[in-house]
Amino acid sequence: MDFARYLADVVVTCDDAGNIYSPGIVEVTGGVITWVGPESDAPEFTSSGIIHDIGGLLMPGLVNSHCHTPMTLVRGAGDGLPLERWLTEAMWPREGRMSVEDVWWGMTLGSAEMLKSGITTSCEMYLFEESVVDAVAKSGARLVMTPGVLSTLHSQSHGKSNDRLKTLMEFYDRYHDPSSRITVGIAPHSAYDLGIHMCRELSDLARSLDTILHIHLAETQEESKELEEQYGKSITKILLEEGVFDGQTLAAHCVWVDDSDISLLANANVSVAHCPVSNMKLGSGIAPLVKMIVAGITVGLGTDGPASNDTLDLWEEVKVAALLARVVNLDSTLITPMQALNMATCDAAKAVGLDNVGSLTEGFAADMIRIDLNHSCFTPITETNELLAHLVWAGSNRRVTDVWVEGEQVVVHGDLKTVDEEKAQAEVNERAMRLVQG
Amino acid sequence: MDFARYLADVVVTCDDAGNIYSPGIVEVTGGVITWVGPESDAPEFTSSGIIHDIGGLLMPGLVNSHCHTPMTLVRGAGDGLPLERWLTEAMWPREGRMSVEDVWWGMTLGSAEMLKSGITTSCEMYLFEESVVDAVAKSGARLVMTPGVLSTLHSQSHGKSNDRLKTLMEFYDRYHDPSSRITVGIAPHSAYDLGIHMCRELSDLARSLDTILHIHLAETQEESKELEEQYGKSITKILLEEGVFDGQTLAAHCVWVDDSDISLLANANVSVAHCPVSNMKLGSGIAPLVKMIVAGITVGLGTDGPASNDTLDLWEEVKVAALLARVVNLDSTLITPMQALNMATCDAAKAVGLDNVGSLTEGFAADMIRIDLNHSCFTPITETNELLAHLVWAGSNRRVTDVWVEGEQVVVHGDLKTVDEEKAQAEVNERAMRLVQG
Repeated sequence: MDFARYLADVVVTCDDAGNIYSPGIVEVTGGVITWVGPESDAPEFTSSGIIHDIGGLLMPGLVNSHCHTPMTLVRGAGDGLPLERWLTEAMWPREGRMSVEDVWWGMTLGSAEMLKSGITTSCEMYLFEESVVDAVAKSGARLVMTPGVLSTLHSQSHGKSNDRLKTLMEFYDRYHDPSSRITVGIAPHSAYDLGIHMCRELSDLARSLDTILHIHLAETQEESKELEEQYGKSITKILLEEGVFDGQTLAAHCVWVDDSDISLLANANVSVAHCPVSNMKLGSGIAPLVKMIVAGITVGLGTDGPASNDTLDLWEEVKVAALLARVVNLDSTLITPMQALNMATCDAAKAVGLDNVGSLTEGFAADMIRIDLNHSCFTPITETNELLAHLVWAGSNRRVTDVWVEGEQVVVHGDLKTVDEEKAQAEVNERAMRLVQG
Repeated sequence: MDFARYLADVVVTCDDAGNIYSPGIVEVTGGVITWVGPESDAPEFTSSGIIHDIGGLLMPGLVNSHCHTPMTLVRGAGDGLPLERWLTEAMWPREGRMSVEDVWWGMTLGSAEMLKSGITTSCEMYLFEESVVDAVAKSGARLVMTPGVLSTLHSQSHGKSNDRLKTLMEFYDRYHDPSSRITVGIAPHSAYDLGIHMCRELSDLARSLDTILHIHLAETQEESKELEEQYGKSITKILLEEGVFDGQTLAAHCVWVDDSDISLLANANVSVAHCPVSNMKLGSGIAPLVKMIVAGITVGLGTDGPASNDTLDLWEEVKVAALLARVVNLDSTLITPMQALNMATCDAAKAVGLDNVGSLTEGFAADMIRIDLNHSCFTPITETNELLAHLVWAGSNRRVTDVWVEGEQVVVHGDLKTVDEEKAQAEVNERAMRLVQG
């Protein structure tokens, strides 16, 4: 079995203990972390492994908790249109023309972008789930695939609801394997799109499979108006009372939740995918991040799709989440660098239903990234806190030099080994042009 | 006289006309732009110049309209402290220990960071003005130096107010030269620090020299409370009525300005340096960007000092300014990509008092940057608007490959030719440690 030790100038574990070892060692055996700690405490080698003296900073790979990555194909389309027109004029017509191959190439290009910036896992909500799985598998990344269910868009090409449920169950049976890099959840798009009944049916399905339910919740102020008027309560309360959140739930956005919604979500153990950049770009609103954290909700960060961001850069999300929380509360003491980093690593992993990634912990998969500290943005460092501050405020994805998933190195000195990026760019460019023209 | 033509796949002029030429040519003669337009319209060569077929995207260098760059020396210090404690415990003790050499190295490291990310001009408010000028001159960048005047901090080492005024006049006489890369303004720190009388005296000085007055204005809600209670009006109104804004004024931040303040600032032709990232990180508040633009105020973007940001990345400011404006107004149609880019180029140049940089215009200095478009973040491009959208939303400083100031190429294929960055990092690290320990 492969065995190796990685010796780094700094190891940031991103767990509840918040350990930092300098210098530190992470030992990996057969793709699993078998020891983590300061170099000085490392036990003697008992196996004929290799020591990689990698310098720099070693930390867990980032987890993108909410994304529609194949939308690299429509990146930048319709910018500046009002939300409704953006959807109906720019997004949906293009998405309606997408083929299986289009989605494969869009996902491949996005996987490349994510891996190179240090994202080792993404939780995807999209159609064409077979394409997405295949593209991610070839890229070497980890994937939580939650195939989307929508009432309108693509209903023709993806089957009526009963057929779709059957497809999802078969898909789950075929691909869900927590011991591999692929797990499968269920993703009703939203209550406003599907209605309460369908959301509940899909929630029941997710619970019967013991997997996560991934749903858009309270993204914009207007979207659930009709349902809220009908039921006389917030969409969060409606879904809770209807049992939709009875299983393991990942709710994306949660912008328009009030104090009592937050308290109910916390009690129901609903996790939240916080996507501040997307919420800002689309003018949706500002999610009450600090209140959610204080209430005990597990909050992971997500980029959302590249058409509403328009990058797949979770480092930017880390910084913007902290910035936004501070400014809306007029309080510079909120969100420590460690909190911000954890929302992109261990908390995001919990949010998407994974219990073996997101921190450098014995027994966890060796999903790790190395960051080059030899850069102006990490200068000066007079104490460890400053290093964490630099990671959040001054660093960025371009400092990620090496990436491992399950111990397999997929990015080596900035070079992605698994994807032909030039080809992927050319394909996406060409296919995007066809999506515009129909 | 040096003569060259640069042929790029795309030329974005960043002027009021918003021209984009694809492919386009920029002709430079003796450091000055002598022709700009589409390749197809280019007049025949009449001189024996060189054609550089550079591909990519050519646009003006960015202008950082408000910065205290030598604070690279204190980057990351005291993060998470409340503002008052951050200043009194983390910033001022360290700044109080800075030497002329410290500031030189801090400015050098910051100049390197800015040039490599495409910032060709910065407007600096700091003490040790001779050091700043010398460091920037050696880096090859353009500088609007506005030496700071403060009542308390460093008053010992920088002279009492009368001496300081004399120093400023001598400094102006020695260095201000609009035909060179260095111009000089006057920078009273703020009304709350200096009092109204001193601000007015410095405003008179700036007017007598026909140069800009650079001042912090309404950054936090609390800072001017005492003056506002005394005068019974906002700090903006007080300064206006006292004649402080009678000349050419650059007001940094303007977070706490109401509608009537905005209208008065517009009428007085006060320009604003908008620093959203700093305002967010320090929990200061959200400046009313859209209202200021609608009122006709010239708004440039600024990074503020690297201790309150903590990068010198104006591309991030471009994106965050647009994001923040959209989300506070719940309106995804606000701030077009072109508006966002202009705030970092032509509008910022106007704001800092320069009339010969910030756009690719005949007669302007050839301060230009080349951006590599061959990247996933610029994929796909199905129309020109998408390219501009990508520049704002998906691009970042790492796509800047080449930088020219006054026609002199200082960054070549990502390599900065004028600064020994490794040495600068080492110096700043070592000096920062001394600033902590005293």
